[in-house]
Amino acid sequence: MPDPALTYELYKIDTLTHARLGRVTTRHGSFDTPAFMPVGTQGTIKGQLPNLIAETGSQCILANTYHLMLRPGEKVVAELGDLHGFMAWPGPILTDSGGFQVFSLADINKITDDGVTFKSHVDGSVVHLTPERSTQVQNDLGADIIMAFDECPDPTKPREYQLQAVERTLRWAGQCLAAHARTDDQSLFGIVQGGVDLELRSFCVSRLIDLGLPGYAVGGLAVGEGFEAMKTVLAHTTPLLPQNKPRYLMGVGFPRDIVEAVSHGIDMFDCVMPTRNGRNAYAFTREGAIRIRNSRFTSDSGPIEDGCDCYACRTFTRGAIRHYFFAGEMLGPMLVSLHNIRFYQRLMADIRQAIADGEFETFKRLDPRASLGPAGESD
Amino acid sequence: MPDPALTYELYKIDTLTHARLGRVTTRHGSFDTPAFMPVGTQGTIKGQLPNLIAETGSQCILANTYHLMLRPGEKVVAELGDLHGFMAWPGPILTDSGGFQVFSLADINKITDDGVTFKSHVDGSVVHLTPERSTQVQNDLGADIIMAFDECPDPTKPREYQLQAVERTLRWAGQCLAAHARTDDQSLFGIVQGGVDLELRSFCVSRLIDLGLPGYAVGGLAVGEGFEAMKTVLAHTTPLLPQNKPRYLMGVGFPRDIVEAVSHGIDMFDCVMPTRNGRNAYAFTREGAIRIRNSRFTSDSGPIEDGCDCYACRTFTRGAIRHYFFAGEMLGPMLVSLHNIRFYQRLMADIRQAIADGEFETFKRLDPRASLGPAGESD
Repeated sequence: MPDPALTYELYKIDTLTHARLGRVTTRHGSFDTPAFMPVGTQGTIKGQLPNLIAETGSQCILANTYHLMLRPGEKVVAELGDLHGFMAWPGPILTDSGGFQVFSLADINKITDDGVTFKSHVDGSVVHLTPERSTQVQNDLGADIIMAFDECPDPTKPREYQLQAVERTLRWAGQCLAAHARTDDQSLFGIVQGGVDLELRSFCVSRLIDLGLPGYAVGGLAVGEGFEAMKTVLAHTTPLLPQNKPRYLMGVGFPRDIVEAVSHGIDMFDCVMPTRNGRNAYAFTREGAIRIRNSRFTSDSGPIEDGCDCYACRTFTRGAIRHYFFAGEMLGPMLVSLHNIRFYQRLMADIRQAIADGEFETFKRLDPRASLGPAGESD
Repeated sequence: MPDPALTYELYKIDTLTHARLGRVTTRHGSFDTPAFMPVGTQGTIKGQLPNLIAETGSQCILANTYHLMLRPGEKVVAELGDLHGFMAWPGPILTDSGGFQVFSLADINKITDDGVTFKSHVDGSVVHLTPERSTQVQNDLGADIIMAFDECPDPTKPREYQLQAVERTLRWAGQCLAAHARTDDQSLFGIVQGGVDLELRSFCVSRLIDLGLPGYAVGGLAVGEGFEAMKTVLAHTTPLLPQNKPRYLMGVGFPRDIVEAVSHGIDMFDCVMPTRNGRNAYAFTREGAIRIRNSRFTSDSGPIEDGCDCYACRTFTRGAIRHYFFAGEMLGPMLVSLHNIRFYQRLMADIRQAIADGEFETFKRLDPRASLGPAGESD
């Protein structure tokens, strides 16, 4: 029997929390968990060169099926060496299913049990996305980890709609598995939906586990439900997932959210925040967020964050970076995004070290980053 | 007597042309001539990280006094480690005087013998730029080579205006020299004006030489006079300049223009073309320009230019770069600009090698790059 496309090694479970230390290995290499994956929506982490992304400690990156199927099209990416060649990233890559983008960004015409019909934001053409189509696109894109096509419903919709969405998500997961044509080198993860309804979450997990997938994601969080609700859902859901498989919390989040989720046993994260905020001159630092456009940085000769070892902090002053933002120069967004990614990767490395040292509970309680939430303040 | 702020070593003069092989040494290191200097208008070569610029073979870079005095202001740059610290470029830097930008970009209120009054494009405030002010700003910015403040008149104006502008330029050069407060580590170059009037050029050179400056530039070319007129002016003017000092042709140009100017004995060049064209998906290649947005590159898995050793060509396919342009991703402009700078630096290295080998006349006649002019075609 050939090696599986993905292996998960669980090194350690923290004794005071549910935090896990581990390692995921794919056909394109390994990444240490808990892991943070920077997001390359359109086949590039905005404004970044891959060699510097690797230097931040990023080991696995993410790309978006929705965007890439519309432009340049998955067949073009496949011809250009699949995502690894296209993005010049030889390491592990994960693609989402397109579901989240369709439900959050697209001008949707119709949702049926078959799939979703929407208008392309690129050229206005009508596109039909189904579990089979999402899987085929992801097979062509060639990422190491691919995601089941799911429905991520508006959390304010009534319970019967939430139940219907979960049932659809489960049915679609089975269809994705059946359509998956590259099981030898790509691993399909299922997505647990169910909003803040714990019973629905339990139901979704139990049915997904029956599919025997190589990994599971928790979806539908960080969509406005609030930090406390997220904690409640994670505390309920994560223990239901199999111990021997990686767990991925999609689209999360602030450092505070990541530390909290790690304590519930989550292994993988992705979020656009380091790059999106970086493009807007919002820089993460250990003591809280700073806005580089602030006039107090005009002649500041220090780095974005004292003690940071990233290329931006080693090379440029706050004052120069502030100038680049006011002058409309690309270098400003490039540098702050790069710093923010390094900030996240250093956070993950420190989390892993704390788990290894049996100090994670202390880290969660005392490290200032563990309380960095919206507006950079603890709450 | 202390070492001068600048030394020029003339290694060789080509026997069939006037091409020169040499080396300029400043307090921040040396550069080989003929040299091409990429332009960092606002204190950054647009979209580029300094380590990759160094990797292209660039040894000296340029920044613009006009832009930096308006934003962030020369005092801010001085506080942030002068231009070397600000731009994170430890090697040689040249600043222009602001004259060209004032005359070509600014909303000018008044030109007098005293200087120029114009409106800031940043905040609309009224700014007065004089030879003394330009020199003070350049002293604060701290580049290794600084330029005299000159008038670059509209070439269509009548001869009496051209004469008046040359006389003003000469007077201003003397005032710049008198105002120059950092002769120990900055070298002030004079600028020869006179449009396409050879008599005026002779007059300007002879009077500038009296100032005994460490280097001389030829200005007022590549402003619409045409290739043949440029050749005529260079053939006339360059032999009048001292052999033992570097000669700089400002703002030029296409590969064809550079090769031609080298044959007349020019040593230094700067031009925004590699970066400006790069941002617009226009890539230089040995065989002519290509436009990366062209649909024939959609699935092209080759590099921008076959055989190119730049980071962009080593790392990304034409197809991926084309996608980045259509998707509005910064990476497209970043990569094509980087390639174009490397293209120019390889051209300069090959020119220097050809001079060293006594083969420059053959190079000028046969190398396809020597005929790359507007639209990428020979003319």
